[in-house]
Amino acid sequence: MDINSILAPIQSELQTVEVRLREAIHVEFEPLANVFETLIGSGGKRIRPALSVLSTKFHPTDPDKALTLAISTELVHAATLIHDDLIDKSPLRRGSPTVNSRWSGTATVLAGDFLLARAADIAASLDNFRVMRLFARTLMAICDGEIRQDFGGAHWPPNREAYYRHIDSKTASLFVACTESGAILSSASEDEITALRDFGHNLGRAFQIADDILDFTADQRALGKPVGSDLRQGTLTLPVFYFVEQDPRGAQVEETLQLDAHDGPEMDRLIEAIRQSPAIAASKAEARRHVQAAQESLTILPNNSYRQALHNLANYVVDRTT
Amino acid sequence: MDINSILAPIQSELQTVEVRLREAIHVEFEPLANVFETLIGSGGKRIRPALSVLSTKFHPTDPDKALTLAISTELVHAATLIHDDLIDKSPLRRGSPTVNSRWSGTATVLAGDFLLARAADIAASLDNFRVMRLFARTLMAICDGEIRQDFGGAHWPPNREAYYRHIDSKTASLFVACTESGAILSSASEDEITALRDFGHNLGRAFQIADDILDFTADQRALGKPVGSDLRQGTLTLPVFYFVEQDPRGAQVEETLQLDAHDGPEMDRLIEAIRQSPAIAASKAEARRHVQAAQESLTILPNNSYRQALHNLANYVVDRTT
Repeated sequence: MDINSILAPIQSELQTVEVRLREAIHVEFEPLANVFETLIGSGGKRIRPALSVLSTKFHPTDPDKALTLAISTELVHAATLIHDDLIDKSPLRRGSPTVNSRWSGTATVLAGDFLLARAADIAASLDNFRVMRLFARTLMAICDGEIRQDFGGAHWPPNREAYYRHIDSKTASLFVACTESGAILSSASEDEITALRDFGHNLGRAFQIADDILDFTADQRALGKPVGSDLRQGTLTLPVFYFVEQDPRGAQVEETLQLDAHDGPEMDRLIEAIRQSPAIAASKAEARRHVQAAQESLTILPNNSYRQALHNLANYVVDRTT
Repeated sequence: MDINSILAPIQSELQTVEVRLREAIHVEFEPLANVFETLIGSGGKRIRPALSVLSTKFHPTDPDKALTLAISTELVHAATLIHDDLIDKSPLRRGSPTVNSRWSGTATVLAGDFLLARAADIAASLDNFRVMRLFARTLMAICDGEIRQDFGGAHWPPNREAYYRHIDSKTASLFVACTESGAILSSASEDEITALRDFGHNLGRAFQIADDILDFTADQRALGKPVGSDLRQGTLTLPVFYFVEQDPRGAQVEETLQLDAHDGPEMDRLIEAIRQSPAIAASKAEARRHVQAAQESLTILPNNSYRQALHNLANYVVDRTT
């Protein structure tokens, strides 16, 4: 199922999100305005706004509040893209030069900070103590993850616990902020809030594992960066863990990472070996287990078109090819 | 009057602030914990906590809320010190190596971001929509100012409007957040809220002008950096404006800034000329006009020891020598 069909039940809300996102990024200072326009205006799947809106749909909710939540979560996401591209030294994002490729590191992080502050401002207008607190804690989790990554990220030997801590802070924490906040704003019961929180958590994990798999399996054009760029940067992700555990050539990973050049033929061969190995299917199976856990959390909610959309969205995040 | 005598009416609150600040900066990741301990643990004048607490004192206020506000404003201040030192490439702060002198630029900004997120988390616990919104807007103003500064800050010719915009976003906005939020939390009347807001705004301007004067007049040991470091970095502050307007040697400022080396004998001579010129007294007079405006705002408040403390604090910020 394609993403537009999945999100059909909230199509009109997502159209309003586009309009309000553009209003939200309006700033006076021109260089900053251009950065935000390129980043937000160039689209994206808007999965976080969709999760936010869908999570408010199980009880009558002020539609304006649902949209406000949706916009602030997408702004946080955009801010983390700016920061991630800097940490990863990425030259391109969705075909356009990244902020870090044009600005100083400091200005780049501050541009992200500005979006975070605007997101906080918009979230504050929800006037909901629990949501605001959840929001602030999400920002702390994201910063903590980014700092640890900038400090060298994953280390040898591969450590699954550190990997999950990293993807939880980097990705799952914001998915949780979307779904749990949506539930809170709709005055859902505590059980329903927990269910939607767990859904977001597991979906976020599945989403990030799928991203880490795509870094090996997608082609360079779809990725907008070299295949295997995580490993080239020394970042160990789930497919690498399975490869090291299961493949006789697993020992080559450590050796190849110790070479000075991470773009040489040894690295190219290693990435190709991982791409062709059963480590990919094993990683995908692990992502699917998180999808399943996410979908199971939904069963306590009323069975309507919104629950179905969340269910389908969970399948989509691991089946997508970009 | 020394700062301890001025703040005697809230001495016990400020002692609790010290304890709670240390709790607030507790983090698991050791490198980050060390950074915060050095920065927050090494003291500082705690002017923002003092302003926050004093501003709640004109009506009965939950003392815990006053302290919560005080702590979150000091954390925002600490975060901006981390960011400022990076933008200014300062090697030392209060005699200790700065974060930026030990960490990458990215990690440095993220360490500041983490403190901002924690400050937001603590501020959210106040459960006050107006305060939270004010808080988020202060963060936006600070980021906007930092980005503009990183983009080259002040440009020739000296522009007073740009200077005030810069010090408003860099310093006065957080002073306003302290005093206005304090007033809001104490359920002050709208007139009193406006009065305390104006007080914070003018006090913040006076404070920053005094800082900019001290950059010329203090000795290198007290500053912990070379005298005239703003000008050496190409940042034009109020004393420079007066010097350019009033002194026959004013034209030398532009010439000297065009030299490749900003640490040569020409720059040393220019800084000494500004330091000895009437531009210093003229700048101080301008700072005092802001102090006076600040003190006039206070007259609608009950005349008690807290109002007296705010009044004296306003004199202190321009009379201080560090």
